[in-house]
Amino acid sequence: MPNPDFSVEPWRLRECTLNLDLLAQAESLFALSNGHIGWRGNLDEGEPHALPGSYLNGVHEVRPLPYAERGYGNPEDSQTVINVTNGKVIRLLVDDEPLDLRYGTLVSHERTLDFRTGLLTREIHWVSPAGKAVKVRSTRLVSFTQRAVAAIGYEVEAVDKTVRVVIQSELIANEEQPAQSDDPRSSAVLARPLAAVMHAAHGTKAVLVHRVEHSGLGVAAAMDHTVSGEDELPCRTEVEPDLARFSVGNRLEPGQKLGFAKFVAYGWSSTRSVPALRDQVEAALAAAKVTGWDGLVAEQKEFLDRFWRDADVEVDGDAEVQQAVRFALFHVLQAAARGERRAIAAKGLTGPGYDGHAFWDTEMLVLPVLTYTYPEAVAHALWWRHDTIPLAQDRAAQLGFDGAAFPWRTITGLECSGYWPAGTAAFHLNAAIAAAVTRYVSASGDEEFAAAAGIALLVETARLWRSLGHHNSEGRFCIDGVTGPDEYSAIADNNVYTNLMAKKNLMAAYEYVHRFPDRARELGVGEEEAAAWHDAAKAVLVPYDEALGVHPQSDGFTRHQEWDFARSEYPLLLHHPYFDIYRKQVVKQADLVLAIMQCPEEFTPEQKARDFDYYERITVRDSSLSACVQAVVAAEVGQLQLAHDYTAEAALMDIADLEHNTADGLHIASLAGAWIALVNGLGGLRQDGGMLRFAPRLPPGLSRLKFTVRQRDSRIRVTVTPSSARYEVDGPDELTIVHHGQTVRLDSVQELAIPPAPRVRPSEQPPGRAPRRRDVED
Amino acid sequence: MPNPDFSVEPWRLRECTLNLDLLAQAESLFALSNGHIGWRGNLDEGEPHALPGSYLNGVHEVRPLPYAERGYGNPEDSQTVINVTNGKVIRLLVDDEPLDLRYGTLVSHERTLDFRTGLLTREIHWVSPAGKAVKVRSTRLVSFTQRAVAAIGYEVEAVDKTVRVVIQSELIANEEQPAQSDDPRSSAVLARPLAAVMHAAHGTKAVLVHRVEHSGLGVAAAMDHTVSGEDELPCRTEVEPDLARFSVGNRLEPGQKLGFAKFVAYGWSSTRSVPALRDQVEAALAAAKVTGWDGLVAEQKEFLDRFWRDADVEVDGDAEVQQAVRFALFHVLQAAARGERRAIAAKGLTGPGYDGHAFWDTEMLVLPVLTYTYPEAVAHALWWRHDTIPLAQDRAAQLGFDGAAFPWRTITGLECSGYWPAGTAAFHLNAAIAAAVTRYVSASGDEEFAAAAGIALLVETARLWRSLGHHNSEGRFCIDGVTGPDEYSAIADNNVYTNLMAKKNLMAAYEYVHRFPDRARELGVGEEEAAAWHDAAKAVLVPYDEALGVHPQSDGFTRHQEWDFARSEYPLLLHHPYFDIYRKQVVKQADLVLAIMQCPEEFTPEQKARDFDYYERITVRDSSLSACVQAVVAAEVGQLQLAHDYTAEAALMDIADLEHNTADGLHIASLAGAWIALVNGLGGLRQDGGMLRFAPRLPPGLSRLKFTVRQRDSRIRVTVTPSSARYEVDGPDELTIVHHGQTVRLDSVQELAIPPAPRVRPSEQPPGRAPRRRDVED
Repeated sequence: MPNPDFSVEPWRLRECTLNLDLLAQAESLFALSNGHIGWRGNLDEGEPHALPGSYLNGVHEVRPLPYAERGYGNPEDSQTVINVTNGKVIRLLVDDEPLDLRYGTLVSHERTLDFRTGLLTREIHWVSPAGKAVKVRSTRLVSFTQRAVAAIGYEVEAVDKTVRVVIQSELIANEEQPAQSDDPRSSAVLARPLAAVMHAAHGTKAVLVHRVEHSGLGVAAAMDHTVSGEDELPCRTEVEPDLARFSVGNRLEPGQKLGFAKFVAYGWSSTRSVPALRDQVEAALAAAKVTGWDGLVAEQKEFLDRFWRDADVEVDGDAEVQQAVRFALFHVLQAAARGERRAIAAKGLTGPGYDGHAFWDTEMLVLPVLTYTYPEAVAHALWWRHDTIPLAQDRAAQLGFDGAAFPWRTITGLECSGYWPAGTAAFHLNAAIAAAVTRYVSASGDEEFAAAAGIALLVETARLWRSLGHHNSEGRFCIDGVTGPDEYSAIADNNVYTNLMAKKNLMAAYEYVHRFPDRARELGVGEEEAAAWHDAAKAVLVPYDEALGVHPQSDGFTRHQEWDFARSEYPLLLHHPYFDIYRKQVVKQADLVLAIMQCPEEFTPEQKARDFDYYERITVRDSSLSACVQAVVAAEVGQLQLAHDYTAEAALMDIADLEHNTADGLHIASLAGAWIALVNGLGGLRQDGGMLRFAPRLPPGLSRLKFTVRQRDSRIRVTVTPSSARYEVDGPDELTIVHHGQTVRLDSVQELAIPPAPRVRPSEQPPGRAPRRRDVED
Repeated sequence: MPNPDFSVEPWRLRECTLNLDLLAQAESLFALSNGHIGWRGNLDEGEPHALPGSYLNGVHEVRPLPYAERGYGNPEDSQTVINVTNGKVIRLLVDDEPLDLRYGTLVSHERTLDFRTGLLTREIHWVSPAGKAVKVRSTRLVSFTQRAVAAIGYEVEAVDKTVRVVIQSELIANEEQPAQSDDPRSSAVLARPLAAVMHAAHGTKAVLVHRVEHSGLGVAAAMDHTVSGEDELPCRTEVEPDLARFSVGNRLEPGQKLGFAKFVAYGWSSTRSVPALRDQVEAALAAAKVTGWDGLVAEQKEFLDRFWRDADVEVDGDAEVQQAVRFALFHVLQAAARGERRAIAAKGLTGPGYDGHAFWDTEMLVLPVLTYTYPEAVAHALWWRHDTIPLAQDRAAQLGFDGAAFPWRTITGLECSGYWPAGTAAFHLNAAIAAAVTRYVSASGDEEFAAAAGIALLVETARLWRSLGHHNSEGRFCIDGVTGPDEYSAIADNNVYTNLMAKKNLMAAYEYVHRFPDRARELGVGEEEAAAWHDAAKAVLVPYDEALGVHPQSDGFTRHQEWDFARSEYPLLLHHPYFDIYRKQVVKQADLVLAIMQCPEEFTPEQKARDFDYYERITVRDSSLSACVQAVVAAEVGQLQLAHDYTAEAALMDIADLEHNTADGLHIASLAGAWIALVNGLGGLRQDGGMLRFAPRLPPGLSRLKFTVRQRDSRIRVTVTPSSARYEVDGPDELTIVHHGQTVRLDSVQELAIPPAPRVRPSEQPPGRAPRRRDVED
């Protein structure tokens, strides 16, 4: 399962040779981002490439959505992330030959992404077709501390002969891309999305400003350079509408080096003028230059030291998972750190997959991890949702409902989903937003956010649920015709997950309007409205199949025909029609099992065990969002080996390219799922209002698990061994937790025994769909 | 409700003035067709026009179907009817002015479609802007007896001054059309679909041959002329790739006339060569010229005399319905008469609506009418389905099922539906085909058809049903996740209509394989397979809501929220999302009520009354297929006034343009529904195997209803008055019928009393959705 091209090391991802077949995957794995700027791990010299990628969070183009048959409420347009001005490119001429690894002799090539420094380093030893050897070392960063800035340290050295080298450092707009759509109208829109507005160069500095044609966004990119080594080298800066180029050259004796630092700054705006945009990026550039290359590197390390102090997870006994969970946390941080009131996309800023859209998995899987490791980013992500409330209210009104209906997929907050049974109908995403609000507020104690944005999100989503559901003739509150998390079912009545999450949503809104009565008045919530939410929540219908003793995922689900796994081809959605998939008992991703994870109080232990076992048999995991959830519930019901196996699957999703599409960008939610599998799964973490519950248990293959959970202004550091768990509070708060059902005050370090796991028969998965079993290390 | 532009007359539709606002509707109403050729009622001079329309059944172009999000099994391409070479155009120059009714003075203008002669006549009295008056008379026919031929008699007369006239008779290919699609790829394909292949002219004759670019079909059109009056007039024939023009001119003294007959022949083929196609149309033209204008007119009358003898329905007491049902029967005949192994499209050949596709309503509503009035056409239509079995088998295999899955919408038999929840999922269409087979065979006694095509259709559809359904844990046969006839519900389990029709389909296949054991062997049906059909049919699940005492349309339907009619805008599908429509209790068109009509033996009289009342309250009739079905069941449950009201709605659909889209073509199935409402509804006709049942009852407004039902080689003529029904057999067969439950041998004329109707409370419809009440005439 692990990829032999990457070495297994605890704190870094290292590629030891250049494998052109893995170019696209490596571009995603080695992507750098701070949540605002995203640079795929393209080679410095630009080519060969699979997908050149430079992204700015929020910068997109608008393209038409086509339909074979129209329907009321179908979005007319979608939004697609576009490749902005590429500031990564540094080309090198060695005598008469451009450095191009497809030619000449590559003596060695190594790239390393270091999770503690945040640097991507690359070392090349190359002999040109004419026999001239050079060593090149580049180091790339996208700054966590200076949001608009990325930088590259670049150095070339002559090895054994004198060589004449020229280095060209560039900004390139409208770089040629593989086609992103087979709709010719979309392709046309996306082919050259940037219209040149201004360009200028002074000394070692250049700036390009463009406008995105249909979305109208302004995008500015600027670069500046600090050449090291000899002074007075011949250098030159040229600029055209779509190209800026800084060149420097020298004649290098063996062992002699030529290098520079390249600083790149980006900015974009839907409103600011061209001069204002230009000034903004040049100012950012000036600040970066003042900090200097070494300063940026030092700031990056300092930022990450702080992050890892709270976020690190230590896993003894599975070196691959140890590496993968740090890789995962690093990329989750990169996706979110400086998003600042913009969405966190499904692929972060690592590739164009899913058009750069954000989905519900942000709130369901990514924000929970950040809530306990880097909560600053959670507030920003939820403020973004808050800022889109007017769009979501318009959407709800268009559909005929009250409150706000947030989009299934979007960049700006406008619905971009073109297939409503698996888009608009998946209203559960609104409850995921509400759950993210209450989880964040409970964990952080951020009452200011709660009163400002949190309550507004809860109220608007509660209004939506109240208008979506109805009381049946027995007074039970039913939500009909919706699609739950499992995308292999659709348009069903009383999806258990949706109903239970709506219940939580309605209850949370009810609590918040009583906690913040003034804000409730501002939001127009009266006693009657709040009481209606409370009534609906208390009356929510949860179907149960008495004959089988399990919860049907939705009304009637367990009465449906069993799927014929013998004739399945995977992923099912590419080989079988939705018609047939929807009406049979086959599950793409955890749905009822996600309900168990999210609403543990709604199920008895026996129900959890039976339900989990039932759904394991029919869950095919054609979604990367599933393994981590199955890991959590597997751990809860005592199937610890299975929990370990699913943990590894979630964590290795991209390093091992398990779904064969890491090329398009990383699966940020699955990576977040690695932490969830370990901490919520093996650590048994649940948050129940202000109270944290743990129920840690290790699978046979692991000897120790250590993690930290941020809670208010403190950190709870938890170390789990096979027999006991040690809890330590670092911070000012007096905290009480529950350990395996036992309430414990953490006023000192507590070392508590772990009760033996219940003996359970291992569940079966569909034929061929069991996760790869982790070997127990001796 | 009646349109004042059209006079109410029993045997014709007459437009007394030219209303340019009604141009598009009139083009559809006055369309002529024989089921092979279709000519919209465009003005002879070509302009003004709304939609120029000349169609050949089966001639189509292929265009791409776009999707916002792809799904396995979605058809990549659709087929669209195209406007073939226009042979209708005859332009007239009056001195220096072209006859154009938008200019000059229109003294009078009258068009008449005569249902007994099959001729569309037009009389114009026009004064040119220069003050020159002419009278023009044109008579148009599309021949029922010479399938490839249409013809026009044209004559111009000088009124009070000497005028110089030139008449130009044309064939025009690639006439400019209003855009048919807002997908630019489709529009491009459809803009100029005909690529010129050859053109020629000799004497008064010309021929154009084209090829349809993507479908590859060859299309040939030819014309010839017989000029009447003086010999030796100067005339001339010119031809270009997309235009052929015959011109004749003269100087006319007041009262003097110039005229000619124009003969047009069409042919098309996917396989024949260009010379063969050309020869085919020129041969047809030669035959028509030999018959001559008067001969064609006489043949047309003779053909229609025969038709009306068996098909006419007399309605005393409602002159509008009397006219409308004859209009309806005339157009149903036109759509089907010479289809000959081609589809009968939803709009016939009267307009481009629905892309020229055929749907299930052909088998459900059109073929039943033809079965009892013109069964020759039914065999042809079902042979067409038979010929498409290989395509339907491929589609079933693609979807993962056995047997044949016929397309929801198509021209050639390939699925063209781009929205699967209301397309592919509506598998009930397969049962409609099976029901059409058994109905036709029972009524006609056509055992040859039954053994050749009928059994193949039954076996393949039975195989489909067996693989679509499954036995649940109680052994009941369930069909999950399908869409029934009501397009305001979708993807539901155990749709009652679908399940009952599948049952009929399975039982019929079981019977046929025992009736034709050799054919069954050829089709590979063994005892085990047939037994499995029988078991499934016997075990079919029919959900019933015990609490409400009604059948839910599908599982759970009656538990759904009630639709909020107070905030409805109609048609709902243009103002409310499918998401919300699907999950609430609102019905577009008869679904459970259609089950009552099609499977009357499955419901008790009490259930019929309760079910009908329940669904009346929630049925909005946003489909033209609904009123006639509601009429039938309204009559059965004793709501005779309502049956009359719905009958009128079905019959007047196009004359009164009730859905505001007659412009795109006539609603052939709704027109067929006029007959169904009168004969199956007020006449109470049901066929139960070889036995015909009648239960006639007249509403207060009607004093007499007379209709004929063809049965084997005989005709049963039925005359209904308020108190009695008279049955008379014309033909060789010994027939037994059931009259209001009483079995009667029709060896002589039988006059039987009609029992009094049960007293029932009239049902309510949704607010504002009751049909317009027919006034009782005094």
